[in-house]
Amino acid sequence: GTMSAEKLEECRQHVRAQLDDVVTFWLQHSHDPVHGGFFTCLGRDGRVYDELKYVWLQGRQVWMYCRLYRTVDRFRKPEILEAAKTGGEFLRKFARVSGGGGQWKCAFCLTRDGKAVKVQRTIFSECFYVMAVDELSRVTGDTDMQLEAEQMMEQLICWVRVDPSGLGRPQLPGDVPTNSMAVPMMLLCLVQQVCEGRPDARQKYAELGSWCVRQILQHVQRDGAAILENVSADGAELPGCSGRLQNPGHALEAGWFLLQFAAETGNAEIQKTAVEKFVALPYASGWDTEHGGLFYFLDVDGHCPTQLEWSMKLWWPHCEALVAFLMAYSQTRKPELLHRFFQVYDYTFSHFPDSVSGEWFGYLTQEGKVALDFKGGPFKGFFHVPRCLLMCEQILDDLLNKD
Amino acid sequence: GTMSAEKLEECRQHVRAQLDDVVTFWLQHSHDPVHGGFFTCLGRDGRVYDELKYVWLQGRQVWMYCRLYRTVDRFRKPEILEAAKTGGEFLRKFARVSGGGGQWKCAFCLTRDGKAVKVQRTIFSECFYVMAVDELSRVTGDTDMQLEAEQMMEQLICWVRVDPSGLGRPQLPGDVPTNSMAVPMMLLCLVQQVCEGRPDARQKYAELGSWCVRQILQHVQRDGAAILENVSADGAELPGCSGRLQNPGHALEAGWFLLQFAAETGNAEIQKTAVEKFVALPYASGWDTEHGGLFYFLDVDGHCPTQLEWSMKLWWPHCEALVAFLMAYSQTRKPELLHRFFQVYDYTFSHFPDSVSGEWFGYLTQEGKVALDFKGGPFKGFFHVPRCLLMCEQILDDLLNKD
Repeated sequence: GTMSAEKLEECRQHVRAQLDDVVTFWLQHSHDPVHGGFFTCLGRDGRVYDELKYVWLQGRQVWMYCRLYRTVDRFRKPEILEAAKTGGEFLRKFARVSGGGGQWKCAFCLTRDGKAVKVQRTIFSECFYVMAVDELSRVTGDTDMQLEAEQMMEQLICWVRVDPSGLGRPQLPGDVPTNSMAVPMMLLCLVQQVCEGRPDARQKYAELGSWCVRQILQHVQRDGAAILENVSADGAELPGCSGRLQNPGHALEAGWFLLQFAAETGNAEIQKTAVEKFVALPYASGWDTEHGGLFYFLDVDGHCPTQLEWSMKLWWPHCEALVAFLMAYSQTRKPELLHRFFQVYDYTFSHFPDSVSGEWFGYLTQEGKVALDFKGGPFKGFFHVPRCLLMCEQILDDLLNKD
Repeated sequence: GTMSAEKLEECRQHVRAQLDDVVTFWLQHSHDPVHGGFFTCLGRDGRVYDELKYVWLQGRQVWMYCRLYRTVDRFRKPEILEAAKTGGEFLRKFARVSGGGGQWKCAFCLTRDGKAVKVQRTIFSECFYVMAVDELSRVTGDTDMQLEAEQMMEQLICWVRVDPSGLGRPQLPGDVPTNSMAVPMMLLCLVQQVCEGRPDARQKYAELGSWCVRQILQHVQRDGAAILENVSADGAELPGCSGRLQNPGHALEAGWFLLQFAAETGNAEIQKTAVEKFVALPYASGWDTEHGGLFYFLDVDGHCPTQLEWSMKLWWPHCEALVAFLMAYSQTRKPELLHRFFQVYDYTFSHFPDSVSGEWFGYLTQEGKVALDFKGGPFKGFFHVPRCLLMCEQILDDLLNKD
C-alpha cells in the first residue's frame, strides 16, 4: 500500500545517508599512508588505538571499496579506487605466508608494516583474500589478479573437500569431522563472487555451488524446527554444546545467501526453504522479546550457552537480518516479511548508529546499552555495515522502481 | 578490635559452610562412574549438559581433592581420596598425546572416554597435569607418580626457558617473544607445589623460583603505577591493546603468589611490592565504583578493551581478591587491607553463591545480574572457589588462633 511505500522511501533515504556516512568514516580514519593497508582498530571518534592489521578485515575492506566503486555511481570516485588498490597491494604483498608443502596460507594478523603475527588453522583469511583479489581484478581489469584469486580458491577447495592437512591441524582421534555452517557459506559466497558475469566459471563451479547448498541445508535439524550451527559430516546432530549451538545472525545470513542462489538458479524449492527455515526460524528463536534485538548465541534445548557473550546484541546479526528480511520480501512480497524488516530496522537504527561520531557501535549488552564503544576492532571492520546498507539500498531502489 | 574479631569469626563459619557445600556439589554431580574423570559442564542444578572433559579442569579437580584430603581433617575421607585417585588415573591414562620429537603434550579437551579433541599450543594443560600428579603422589606416597610429575615439569621448563618449538607454534616474524604474566605465575605455582617439604627440590628449583619472581615483577609498569598483563621479553611495555591490557583478578592472584614466596623466603622487599603493587593497584583500577565487583579486563589508557566480556564480573577474580587481601592482612596486619577484604567479601557472597541449587554462579553482567547460570563449564570447575574458601578458612583459623 501507499503507507508502506512511504515508509520504504523513508528507509531508502535513511539507508543511503547512513551508507555515505559510514564510507566517509572509513575513508577518513582507516587508511595508513605510510605502509598501505587499513587500520581497523578505530575508537569511538575514529582514532587508531592499535596498529595491528587483521587480514580478514583487510580483504573485506578491499572487497567493499571495489564493490561500491563498481556498482554505485556516487562511489565511482578515484579516492575509493585508489584506496582499494593500495589495500590490495598490501594484502597481496604481505598476507601470504608459506605454509610448507608448496602451499600458501594467509596470516590472520599482521603488524602495521606487514609482518605475520598469527596464522589461524582455518580457511577464512584465504576466503577474504580471494574475495578481495577477485573483486579488485574486476575494477582494474587485471587478469593476473583474477588468476591469483582462482589459484587461492582452488587450494581452499582442496583443503575443504580433499585434504585439510595443509591447514596445520593435527588429526586427533576425538576430533570428528564436522560440517560447520561457516565453511559451505563462505565457499558459496566465493562461488557467487568468481562466477558473476563469467559463464565459464559458472560451469566450472556449478557442482561446488550445489555441494555448498546441500551442506548448508544439512543444518536444518530437529525435523525442520531449528537451524544448528554445527552438524556431523553426514548431516546428523552432534552431541553436546557444539551440536546444540545456534547463531541466529549467521543462520539469517545463510538465508539470504540461499535466496540469492535460488534467484540465480530459479529454484523455488530452495527459496521456500530459505524463507521458512533460514529466515523465519532464527528470528523466532533468536529475537529477544523482552529487550528487542537478536541474541548472539543460543542453545537449542534452552541450556545456557558457554560463550560469555551469548546474550549480547552485536551489530552484524542485525545487518544480516535486515538483508535477509528485505530480500525475502522482495522475492516473495509476503507482507509479514516486510513487517519483520521494519521491526529489525527500528531496533537497529535506534541502537547501533552513533549520532555523535558517526558509524555504528558493534557491541551492546542484552539490555541495549553500549558495552564496547569502538567503531572498529579485531572483528569489526568496513564490511557488515556497508554491505548491509548497500544491499538494502539496492533492493529498496528496485522495490521502488528507482534507476 | 573485638568488632573485627567477631566479623572474622562470622566469616570463618560462613566460609567453612560454603566450602562444605561446594565440595558436596562436585562430589555429587561431577563424577563419571563409567569412564572415570570428571564432568565439568554442570548446569545450574548440577546436571551434565556436555560430556567433554577439559584437561585443565581434570587436573585442577584432582589437585583440589588431594589438597583437601591432605590438609583438612574433615575432608580426610575415603570418598575424596577415591575420587582423586580415579581422576588421576583418567588424567594419566588419557591426557598425554605424543607431541613428536619424543616430547609429550597434554590435550586441552577429551571426549568422555578419553580421546583427544583439541590440543592447545601453550603450557597450561601440562602445568595442571603436574600439579595434579604431584599432589596425588603426596597422598598416595607413590614415588613413580612424583617422578612423572617432575619429568613433565622439566619438559615445561625447557619449553619456557630453552626451546618452545615443542609447543607447535610456528615462529612468525611479527610475533615477538613476550612475557605473558600467566607463564611465570604458573611456573612459580609449580615450584611451590613440588618443593613443599622437600629440601632437595627446593635447592634444585631455587633459581627457577627467583627467575619466576623476576619475570612477574617485570609486569609492574608505568613507573610503578600499573600492572600490565603482557610485557616484552626484556620487561618493556608492548605497543597496542596487548601491551595495555590489564586483568585485575590475575594481578591479585600474582599478588598472593608473591606474598607466599615472600613468607617462605623471608623477603620483606617482595612482600612490600606484592602489597603495594599487585594487591593495591589492581583493586584501585579494577573495582567498579558504580556497581561493585572487579572488571575482567581493562585498558591502562582507558581505551575500551576488545574482549567482549571486559566489563563482566567473573567469579574467579573475586576468589583471588579474597585470598590476596586476607593474606596481605594476615602478613601485615594493616587495617585497610582487612577493610578491603570485607568489601570484596560482601560483594562476592551477595552475588555469586546460588542459594537455590548450591555452588556459585560464574558470570555476571557489569550490573551484577547472572549472565550465565551454569555451575561448571569449559573454564569453571572445582578449583577457584574451593581453593579460595580453603585458603581463607586456613588464614582465618590462624588469625583467630583456632587449631
